[in-house]
Parts: sequence; structure tokens; C-alpha cells
Amino acid sequence: MINKIDFRLVKNDRFVIVEFILSENIGPDDLKALVPPNPIKENFAQKGVILSGKGPIWLYGFLIHYYHATQWVATYDPRLGGAVVVESHVTDISAGDIISLD
Amino acid sequence: MINKIDFRLVKNDRFVIVEFILSENIGPDDLKALVPPNPIKENFAQKGVILSGKGPIWLYGFLIHYYHATQWVATYDPRLGGAVVVESHVTDISAGDIISLD
Repeated sequence: MINKIDFRLVKNDRFVIVEFILSENIGPDDLKALVPPNPIKENFAQKGVILSGKGPIWLYGFLIHYYHATQWVATYDPRLGGAVVVESHVTDISAGDIISLD
Repeated sequence: MINKIDFRLVKNDRFVIVEFILSENIGPDDLKALVPPNPIKENFAQKGVILSGKGPIWLYGFLIHYYHATQWVATYDPRLGGAVVVESHVTDISAGDIISLD
């Protein structure tokens, strides 16, 4: 597991981009030991989270659930040039909104 | 929105396969009016949910969140011939488990 998946954080005052980088193919078993950056320890529990990276849908699914207690979760879509909100607990951001990364 | 996304349910006693079929490309805005099959009305709130279909990651993200109150959620991966659990609220099924569809 070690270093099969690396995470990189880019923070601003509204959200954090959690980018994952796979150094080799991962399998479902790798989810069992995966510890993504912790929103409380890393001080972004009160922000939105944008997930970015090339990987299987189930890795995204795992991360979306992992971060579900943050303000909102979005997934970056390179075709749109932004991130699409998939869940939100705040009133001014809704699923389907696009967070521009320009 | 109407009929851009169709859903098909296949149920057994342990889980429900929620398959989506896109009749045309969808955009993030379509999430705002999307009403997937309701687990309570359709009587599968006490089962697992397997998501299946060809679509953008943010559609999967939306559906994973939508079904997060069921027993567990998995995403079908055709390369694995099964579905990978991404979140679970029951003790005998964990994230990373593969649910065989054979």
C-alpha cells in the first residue's frame, strides 16, 4: 500500500483541492488500508473539498464518502474546467453547481 | 431533464442494482432536478446498492451520496466483473470488498 497513492492538498479560504496521484494500479483491497488526508487534522473540515485525479470510480466513491462531513464535496471534471458539486451541507452551494478553478 | 436519465432496478434479497442509462449527454445542471429511485418507496433501504452505468464521475458521486443511508454502496467495475464497496454501515461488508455479480 505504501505510496501507491499519494495525496496533494491545495488550500484556499473556501475549499481544498485533494488531488490523488497513483504510482501504480490499485485494487479494491487497497481501500482497506487507505488513509486520505484528515479534514480535522489538516484543518479543512469547515471548507469544501474538490477531488481530483485519474483513478477508478470506486476510489472516487470511497473518497466522496470519506469527506462527506465537510461543507461540500465536488469532483474535478477536466472537460468542464471546473469541479461539479455532488453533495452539500451549506445553503449557498448545491449539487450540480460548478466550482471554477480558473 | 425528462428521460435524459433512465434508471433500471434489479433486486435480490441482499442488494439492488441501480443501473442508469443516459439517452444523451447530461450536464451538471441536470443533477438539480434528478430524482433517482427512492430506497424507501422502492423498498430497498435495508439492502445494499450497486451502482452501474456509463456516465461522468460526478453523476456517480451524486448517486453515492443519494444512497448513503442504505446498508452499503458499491460501484460496478466491468474490469473486475463485480462491484466494489465504497461505504458500508454493516459489520460483515467493508469498503474494498468485491460483490460478485456472477
